Amino acid sequence: MPPFDVPEGDPFGPHNLPYGVFSVPGEDGGARRVGVRLGDHVLDAGAAALALGSPYASLLARPTLNPLLAAGRTAWSDVRRALTGWVTVPSHRETIEPFFHPVAEVTLHLPFEVADYVDFYASENHARNVGRIFRPDAEDSLTPNWKHLPIGYHGRSGTVVVSGTDVVRPSGQRKAPSDPAPVFGPSVRLDIEAEVGFVVGVPTPMGSPVALADFREHVFGLCLLNDWSARDLQAWEYVPLGPFLGKSFATSVSAWITPLDALDAARVAPPERTHPLLPYLDDADEEPGGYDLRISVSLNGHVISEPPFSTMYWTAAQQLAHLTVNGASLRTGDLYGSGTVSGPTERERGSLLELTWNGRDALELPDGKRTFLEDGDTVTMTAWAPGADGARVGLGEVSGRIVAG
Amino acid sequence: MPPFDVPEGDPFGPHNLPYGVFSVPGEDGGARRVGVRLGDHVLDAGAAALALGSPYASLLARPTLNPLLAAGRTAWSDVRRALTGWVTVPSHRETIEPFFHPVAEVTLHLPFEVADYVDFYASENHARNVGRIFRPDAEDSLTPNWKHLPIGYHGRSGTVVVSGTDVVRPSGQRKAPSDPAPVFGPSVRLDIEAEVGFVVGVPTPMGSPVALADFREHVFGLCLLNDWSARDLQAWEYVPLGPFLGKSFATSVSAWITPLDALDAARVAPPERTHPLLPYLDDADEEPGGYDLRISVSLNGHVISEPPFSTMYWTAAQQLAHLTVNGASLRTGDLYGSGTVSGPTERERGSLLELTWNGRDALELPDGKRTFLEDGDTVTMTAWAPGADGARVGLGEVSGRIVAG
Repeated sequence: MPPFDVPEGDPFGPHNLPYGVFSVPGEDGGARRVGVRLGDHVLDAGAAALALGSPYASLLARPTLNPLLAAGRTAWSDVRRALTGWVTVPSHRETIEPFFHPVAEVTLHLPFEVADYVDFYASENHARNVGRIFRPDAEDSLTPNWKHLPIGYHGRSGTVVVSGTDVVRPSGQRKAPSDPAPVFGPSVRLDIEAEVGFVVGVPTPMGSPVALADFREHVFGLCLLNDWSARDLQAWEYVPLGPFLGKSFATSVSAWITPLDALDAARVAPPERTHPLLPYLDDADEEPGGYDLRISVSLNGHVISEPPFSTMYWTAAQQLAHLTVNGASLRTGDLYGSGTVSGPTERERGSLLELTWNGRDALELPDGKRTFLEDGDTVTMTAWAPGADGARVGLGEVSGRIVAG
Repeated sequence: MPPFDVPEGDPFGPHNLPYGVFSVPGEDGGARRVGVRLGDHVLDAGAAALALGSPYASLLARPTLNPLLAAGRTAWSDVRRALTGWVTVPSHRETIEPFFHPVAEVTLHLPFEVADYVDFYASENHARNVGRIFRPDAEDSLTPNWKHLPIGYHGRSGTVVVSGTDVVRPSGQRKAPSDPAPVFGPSVRLDIEAEVGFVVGVPTPMGSPVALADFREHVFGLCLLNDWSARDLQAWEYVPLGPFLGKSFATSVSAWITPLDALDAARVAPPERTHPLLPYLDDADEEPGGYDLRISVSLNGHVISEPPFSTMYWTAAQQLAHLTVNGASLRTGDLYGSGTVSGPTERERGSLLELTWNGRDALELPDGKRTFLEDGDTVTMTAWAPGADGARVGLGEVSGRIVAG
């Protein structure tokens, strides 16, 4: 099918245009190029820009999205407007048609160089479920700080991998309360965390907090993110300094970065705030900071959960404001995860920990029962957001298969 | 004084030769160059290599240490041997003399691009002091996992700064147990952590743990590190996911990286292990994994502590083995801190938290009392290690001044 014949209602139509980085096996020694997705095709955006004499070739004819990310909001809007013209105006279409490749025939790469990776914990449903599971006798299932600040921690940026990368089951120490000493071996409680990742474009110097209202000046777009977690390793190691080896072995992100500009129709108000917020986090008078993203998580092809991102208590703007309020600088390529997305109902939970209530209630799948992940299992997350006039904006999938260590 | 006239006993004599990156104000547009320190001078190592027709010019005539770091142990030894020849053999000396600059006349930069930054918690004295301060009623001042694994967490690599960089006092949320709600403002409990940082040179792919015996194949050298900590921010935020804004505002490292090859005479056995270790951490049959580094911490020029690195329970080799045992990959430029170095006596504690017992016992300094840091305070760490034949190997200092936010 020609690249421009995108079916009506396709979530990757010209209203979407997410960015990625691809190479074509056997071509140009596998050189990486910035790609823009249209339907089932990817446009070699740099080649198109050069052919059209576009001033944006310097941002697009590159092996990574970093230069585009660093260019800032005005450039982001201008480039997006130009791309929209290229794929919709007939005279441009003719010029750029040779630069399309079927998505199925290219290799997709990590689309940007990850600087720092931070992970948050922003779903109240998730935090309460975790509290109920691990501290069943506590008066409040949330820790005392939870409603006052978006809890976060730094993760390992060197192990952020692109969708499709196999995940090697991690080994490490675990110790059940009844064990006399820790034992070593492959994790037996390997889990997922369905998240959304936010990609920072415009950096800041040290000592310059980013106000809530400046969120869109710094964040370019978002992706789907699976924060693989070895619950047994995590349980033994995490007191007092937080998760480390239980998370650091792999974090998968989708190959496509959806620009915030494609998601204007999906902006929604976050849940009502139950506690007063300090001024730097108080978004009562800000534009709506939530995003209505409908996530679907499947295990070996069977949908096991549909977490609604609109239920997240803390917004991405609040997370960025918090992350920088102590003067920490931002770099182009900083990535931060929302934290596991869990809705209020059982079928909306974003981790196996919650879906199986820490292994108590196995999921019944056509290919067998599951509490945690087995070798050979493939987990795939997809999502869409409402667009203008009833359209759907598709997010790129993030998928990974577990292989034995 | 000519660069080669290094006084007998100088800790930066030709037996040391640490590496850094410098520029000369007003020269070459401030271009960065790899430097090697000799006494009070720094050799422009790339220019010297080119003048001598050395095959190592490709590693040294660079704006960062990363290419040398990535080159591996054989290259590290070869380059060090070559440098030793250049600064000791008279015919070479003549050629390279024009490429020396007084250290006082150059600007020193962050010597490598930091990939991931991890911080450990490896001093038993420090961990027990922290336990006694914050959990005075606990049966054991150590958490149950402490003697079984080197506890660590990821920090923010984007805010690792070179010695001499001012540290802006961070603001953030704090809440005393008696406060009804958190308050926002500049940290009032700003602290230091005297640490040693280890610099990874040779990367590994995912799924390839580094055995204890391979430590020196991957780690190039070490530096001094001050893990600035806002104790009030940290106390309110750190449950359950660990330190975040309390640490992420700045981490200072010395401008000089001392190669492990300069520290062979300083290798010592770590403290006796009181608990059996799992095989991947069991170093009973390995070469001595400790380093006898004598650290000195001064506040506004007055020595307040002399932490002995030889007392660290977990070695850098064990930390690297642990960090990678789950399959996490390494990148050139990964940096990991030892954790606060505290010896058994009061004058050997590596943080103000411990030195003042959480503010209870102020330090009496010539310029006034101190519990935590005040604006304008300068903290400087220096260190030396025993070399061959009674020589001292100096580590580069790490210094930073607190400025108001």
